[in-house]
Amino acid sequence: MTTFAPIFVPEELRRATSDSAWLEAMLETERALALVESRLGIVPSDAAGSIGGSCRPELFDLDELLAEGRSPGNPVEPLVRALRERVGGPAADYVHWGATSQDILDTAAMLVSRRAAKLVLAELDGVAAAAAALAERHARTPMVARTLLQQASPTTFGLKAAGWLSGVLAAEATLVRVRDERLAVQLGGAVGTLAAFGDRGSELVAELAEELELAQPVLPWHTERTRIAELASALELVCGAVSKIATDVILLAQTEVGEVREAGGGVSSTLPQKRNPIRSTLVLACARGTGAAATLLRGGDHEHERAAGAWHAEWSALSDALALTGGAAAAACETLQGLEVDEHRMRENLVASRGLVLAERVSFLLTPSLGRAVAQEVVADAADRARANGSSLREELAADARVTLAASELDAAFDPSGYVGSAEELVDAVLALYRSTVDERGGVR
Amino acid sequence: MTTFAPIFVPEELRRATSDSAWLEAMLETERALALVESRLGIVPSDAAGSIGGSCRPELFDLDELLAEGRSPGNPVEPLVRALRERVGGPAADYVHWGATSQDILDTAAMLVSRRAAKLVLAELDGVAAAAAALAERHARTPMVARTLLQQASPTTFGLKAAGWLSGVLAAEATLVRVRDERLAVQLGGAVGTLAAFGDRGSELVAELAEELELAQPVLPWHTERTRIAELASALELVCGAVSKIATDVILLAQTEVGEVREAGGGVSSTLPQKRNPIRSTLVLACARGTGAAATLLRGGDHEHERAAGAWHAEWSALSDALALTGGAAAAACETLQGLEVDEHRMRENLVASRGLVLAERVSFLLTPSLGRAVAQEVVADAADRARANGSSLREELAADARVTLAASELDAAFDPSGYVGSAEELVDAVLALYRSTVDERGGVR
Amino acid sequence: MTTFAPIFVPEELRRATSDSAWLEAMLETERALALVESRLGIVPSDAAGSIGGSCRPELFDLDELLAEGRSPGNPVEPLVRALRERVGGPAADYVHWGATSQDILDTAAMLVSRRAAKLVLAELDGVAAAAAALAERHARTPMVARTLLQQASPTTFGLKAAGWLSGVLAAEATLVRVRDERLAVQLGGAVGTLAAFGDRGSELVAELAEELELAQPVLPWHTERTRIAELASALELVCGAVSKIATDVILLAQTEVGEVREAGGGVSSTLPQKRNPIRSTLVLACARGTGAAATLLRGGDHEHERAAGAWHAEWSALSDALALTGGAAAAACETLQGLEVDEHRMRENLVASRGLVLAERVSFLLTPSLGRAVAQEVVADAADRARANGSSLREELAADARVTLAASELDAAFDPSGYVGSAEELVDAVLALYRSTVDERGGVR
Amino acid sequence: MTTFAPIFVPEELRRATSDSAWLEAMLETERALALVESRLGIVPSDAAGSIGGSCRPELFDLDELLAEGRSPGNPVEPLVRALRERVGGPAADYVHWGATSQDILDTAAMLVSRRAAKLVLAELDGVAAAAAALAERHARTPMVARTLLQQASPTTFGLKAAGWLSGVLAAEATLVRVRDERLAVQLGGAVGTLAAFGDRGSELVAELAEELELAQPVLPWHTERTRIAELASALELVCGAVSKIATDVILLAQTEVGEVREAGGGVSSTLPQKRNPIRSTLVLACARGTGAAATLLRGGDHEHERAAGAWHAEWSALSDALALTGGAAAAACETLQGLEVDEHRMRENLVASRGLVLAERVSFLLTPSLGRAVAQEVVADAADRARANGSSLREELAADARVTLAASELDAAFDPSGYVGSAEELVDAVLALYRSTVDERGGVR
Repeated sequence: MTTFAPIFVPEELRRATSDSAWLEAMLETERALALVESRLGIVPSDAAGSIGGSCRPELFDLDELLAEGRSPGNPVEPLVRALRERVGGPAADYVHWGATSQDILDTAAMLVSRRAAKLVLAELDGVAAAAAALAERHARTPMVARTLLQQASPTTFGLKAAGWLSGVLAAEATLVRVRDERLAVQLGGAVGTLAAFGDRGSELVAELAEELELAQPVLPWHTERTRIAELASALELVCGAVSKIATDVILLAQTEVGEVREAGGGVSSTLPQKRNPIRSTLVLACARGTGAAATLLRGGDHEHERAAGAWHAEWSALSDALALTGGAAAAACETLQGLEVDEHRMRENLVASRGLVLAERVSFLLTPSLGRAVAQEVVADAADRARANGSSLREELAADARVTLAASELDAAFDPSGYVGSAEELVDAVLALYRSTVDERGGVR
Repeated sequence: MTTFAPIFVPEELRRATSDSAWLEAMLETERALALVESRLGIVPSDAAGSIGGSCRPELFDLDELLAEGRSPGNPVEPLVRALRERVGGPAADYVHWGATSQDILDTAAMLVSRRAAKLVLAELDGVAAAAAALAERHARTPMVARTLLQQASPTTFGLKAAGWLSGVLAAEATLVRVRDERLAVQLGGAVGTLAAFGDRGSELVAELAEELELAQPVLPWHTERTRIAELASALELVCGAVSKIATDVILLAQTEVGEVREAGGGVSSTLPQKRNPIRSTLVLACARGTGAAATLLRGGDHEHERAAGAWHAEWSALSDALALTGGAAAAACETLQGLEVDEHRMRENLVASRGLVLAERVSFLLTPSLGRAVAQEVVADAADRARANGSSLREELAADARVTLAASELDAAFDPSGYVGSAEELVDAVLALYRSTVDERGGVR
Repeated sequence: MTTFAPIFVPEELRRATSDSAWLEAMLETERALALVESRLGIVPSDAAGSIGGSCRPELFDLDELLAEGRSPGNPVEPLVRALRERVGGPAADYVHWGATSQDILDTAAMLVSRRAAKLVLAELDGVAAAAAALAERHARTPMVARTLLQQASPTTFGLKAAGWLSGVLAAEATLVRVRDERLAVQLGGAVGTLAAFGDRGSELVAELAEELELAQPVLPWHTERTRIAELASALELVCGAVSKIATDVILLAQTEVGEVREAGGGVSSTLPQKRNPIRSTLVLACARGTGAAATLLRGGDHEHERAAGAWHAEWSALSDALALTGGAAAAACETLQGLEVDEHRMRENLVASRGLVLAERVSFLLTPSLGRAVAQEVVADAADRARANGSSLREELAADARVTLAASELDAAFDPSGYVGSAEELVDAVLALYRSTVDERGGVR
Repeated sequence: MTTFAPIFVPEELRRATSDSAWLEAMLETERALALVESRLGIVPSDAAGSIGGSCRPELFDLDELLAEGRSPGNPVEPLVRALRERVGGPAADYVHWGATSQDILDTAAMLVSRRAAKLVLAELDGVAAAAAALAERHARTPMVARTLLQQASPTTFGLKAAGWLSGVLAAEATLVRVRDERLAVQLGGAVGTLAAFGDRGSELVAELAEELELAQPVLPWHTERTRIAELASALELVCGAVSKIATDVILLAQTEVGEVREAGGGVSSTLPQKRNPIRSTLVLACARGTGAAATLLRGGDHEHERAAGAWHAEWSALSDALALTGGAAAAACETLQGLEVDEHRMRENLVASRGLVLAERVSFLLTPSLGRAVAQEVVADAADRARANGSSLREELAADARVTLAASELDAAFDPSGYVGSAEELVDAVLALYRSTVDERGGVR
């Protein structure tokens, strides 16, 4: 995503997914490779030292490298050439020893992904914490639930927030798992056999993985791209989870609904009455903007031992998916952290139908005595009369001889707080899951 | 997928994802709901018995139910009506007690998914077994590796098959995990509060989950769709893993390459020389045909307590994704089970360049004495001469005074089997992973 | 789309895109091919007659053909074999003369598309007519316009409907153009050279195109799939245009907004107060369900002279895209034809902010005398006071000494109907375009 | 696409779709708006002059504008504020008079699109010219055609190139049409009624369209996004057409096929035998990288009078789609301009099957005398013997008594150049279409 990036993506994430970050990760890979090769006696240790000393991003002209990268179709070749020049002397021969461009770029992709994922997860932690706080605070705040965007029955705002939290926790768990288990070092040499390393290949891969703190793959994965696909789908899950939050907030913030408001929501100078749900809007914009699913998740059929195109398409798709998912999470975090909840308006909307949102409840209460069919008929008739007369459903039911409920029973029936079932228990269950998740991770990832 | 389904999807999978299968699953859900409600004393036990007795698919006219389903926008409402009529008497009132249409349909979706996933996994087991057999049998069969579809260096066919296996195992692991942990019962009532069940809601959900052998969710997930997204992405992973196999087979089966052939590959009456890679073609056709990523994975922002459209779009997307993923896996299984491997042709292609595919190796061997730059220059010169003279790289190198390798060293250098690095070890590692995976699962899922 | 198709797609469209419809179209192609070949003396005319007589769908067992089609990967081969058996005698040799399977299937795809597109367009005509009627009837019905789902300024419902109409007309124009110009006959023989026809190939293609009333392509298009992509994108345009309508209707139909209602909107027995926007919901479900963009529009890189997979993936994607687009259009048509517009509620919502939606207008009116900055400040202050006091913006402005407008000017400023700019003129412009479009086409396509 | 952009996208296109280009287009829109407003007497003409004089990109700090744009969710608000400050005095009040942010940004999007489309079309012109040259030069160059990647029958390389050209022309025609007819000015004011302009709105829109050389829309199209969708699908068509070329080139350039080579194809220092098809690879990478279809084409259901998210997601999707489509076209152009065609290798591959690729032809020749079934049997038998004996199909047929063809007839039958049907005529037809297209446009767009 080039266009207007600062509007959508936090600066740190933009940096973490920038060309500079990729360059840094490629150099780190070259450095680590030389180092572990020297440990195994594959390259001289002074060469490794010399190489390591030159693997500093500020020594390279990124623009030039990229311009030269067009010809071979990737930036590694010119980078290796420049690095060799920089190292000089016999040590130069040991730069990139036994590796292929894809080894460097794939490993760099994993390093970039790990760092960016950390930032995404930090934002997501913020979303989860804010959702948990809302769930807890509003565990008993009644509001009307809406199905197909129509008022249906009572629920609590806490349960709604708990649902948001539940989605975030599920997405986060997947992203954590992918980050911890599936971001693996890539080293296979020209065609994935580790041929240049004789019988030391696997040992070298293990050392490199340890040095870079990445997982060790069973096989080089030049054209076995499930790791990339799993990362992409984890990011899509995150986008989906925060999009749900944003969609609900935008709908609840509508002028005619007015149950929530973004703190400092976009104020228009010409339209002073508006409180635009800008953060939520940015969530949806970011989530819609990633092509991760299309390019990364569906693009797994890389040909033979290196794909012609499918591989090259991954770099930007990955950067964008990471950056935009983080952008979506960051905006969701801001949305929830500053969400103004209007309990009064929630209650107004809940009673605006003059009891109709409790029709289901009354039907259930009448069924034992009247049978289901008659009970529903009685309630439907009363609902019709209430609408026609501008009266309440309670009044109309009270006036119907078939209704055998006592006044106190009717009063209880029309208390919306009394018809939210297991809402509070469900909120508690999600909060318990949230807390155990936080404990498990020690609070920081 | 309507069009020409029998060409693409095995019959059992078509049945498992058919409207009849959905009807069966919905009825099973209604039956189980009544049963566990009676266990908890929420509905009379004779009513539950009567309801259970009527939950038989053959008692319902599917076409009629679906025609009537257009008006409410889903098939549950007419089904419940028909079921009530069928049950009759006071027991009819207890049909669907406390549930909402989405409870039934979502739970049915999970049941359909579990059964179809079992079939997909069975096909995938077959793919894995066939890939493992190829990897083992051809662990030492040399062939040329190709990057960007150009001959690069030697590898083994076993390693290629091990790569296929590796992707299948990764995809399978994800699908198994999603099936076992994420296919959860849905029960929330009208808006997800379990209001109709008083304080018995959570208990009831637990019982229902057990009765249907589905996971118990922390919360009703009416509009928290990460489960659906995770299932969709697992299916996409499977499609990606088998597409990689199919792509490689199609490329290897090309007339000019001829290294593999599908057993009984499509023979054309008018073009008798052709051996069309039909099974692989069907793999790709199925994999391309699923809209799972677009519709299910990206469609997670369901509004409020029931989505207007996003939910309804899931049903077919899910059936199609399951059926087509299974179709892709089935065709991949057939492809590999009957794959004819032409080792002779592999060897011919490997030597067709007269040693050029070993250029990298010779460069490495010459580097210690000549330095990297000169070594590469010597090899490049020899390669040029070999191409120009129609001679072999070995001959040209032998004629170059700068080359200090003995004849025996040159002979060894040009033995392709000697330049496959860790290929055999890598194959063994994947096979070990495969075997432990099979053992863990007891061989059948 | 298999699952619950009758809920989503009108019966005629399901039939038009069914396997039977494809069979019929394939047989029609074989019949026409033999006929025009006989006209050109390429096959004997009695053979053509005999072939034509056997090209009747009811003579073939579709299930059997499809089961047999798995082996060659398409249904044409078994169909041709069965047709030859049916024709018998020497005429059998002239069945399918010079053609390849893809010729038959691609041409059949075009015939299926043309017929289905006619049905889609008929639904779309209905949508356009209904939108035009609403635009005309409500050209002066004031309502509040909403940006980012916040009340902004006045508009008219007629202008909203005119916007819907405008999108439908644009999409329809594209679909008509594609149908008329881009649905072309396919005939190329085994590899697209028309080799079997000597120098009569082009002539034959022209005749066949005429016989089947399809366009004549410049070249056989076996692997030049822009036609398919253009059709797919036309269908996506239609989905987009009707989705806009459905989205607006669902939002306007919200309980808290209540400005429109679907006639006979889904009524729930347990929740009698609801009027679910089911038709709009089906529009969105259908539109989300098509994989046309992913499979057809993006799948254009067919290999060499026949693709291995990309071609085979088109059949279902095409059927589904046609059927679901038609389903979306049909549901949109029903939505608009029966749309109940609540002008009273529109007016209530328009004035609910007590004049704030006219803040922009007053700012503009004050700018000449006060300058823009002061004008906006005055209005913003008054808006704040109005919100705080529960008073109207007009009252607060009247109480502000800086406001120089006369009472009558203020009255005029706060008449929402007076601040809808060119709304009526714009409605007229779209209606004029609509009428000229209808006239041009003679009203029926 | 941020990552490694210089590798994929020509510099001019990167500039044309950069944030700077958007800023320039926004300022141009503000300038033009003030100008035409002054022409119509809506704003004072000296104010317009002053505004116009300040609408210079170099006067603004883009980074600052974008940072400030996060709060309102778009860059127009801070830009207008900065422009007002820059203009100063009473004229400042007339900046952006009557417009809304979306007016400016949508119009800017159209200006950016028009300029970028011009660059894309220039690249596409190059592709078309190169394909036409290849088609003409190789109109009679025989090669083998491949279906499902298997050798099938003879064709010519000219016909293959003509097929490429045909796809490019179709895509180009659509993009030209969209550019010329559908890139329209946006002006509607806050909610699309043009309310701020009294009864002068339509006149003003017409003037603004003329000033900016954009089309005049029937209606403001704030939430009627078919224009955007049409542009996206035109770009997807282009990607599809050039991807077909790249796919074929990559396949033809395979070591084992060797029929074409990219001039200066990527040469590897360690693998000197390789000639990597880098340009074609970049075509596919670019084409896969656009999310245009997903984000722009499918994202049409913008809510009410301004979408919350769907609109904001368009900016980057549009820039990326334009840039990457241009990148794909540029790489395709380079691919074809320097394509080395190896006619010798084509002929070798054509005869490598020892006549089997002419089996179909011989069958046709034998059918009149033997009947179709026997003819095919005779040929299939001979093909089997040829394969078994390493002999040619011609030899085996000559040895079969059932074959009644004279030696000279057999010779003719096995001349591949004689079995390319209408290939030359078809090439001519496409070239004629190409030339008329060029003429029509006067050669430059």
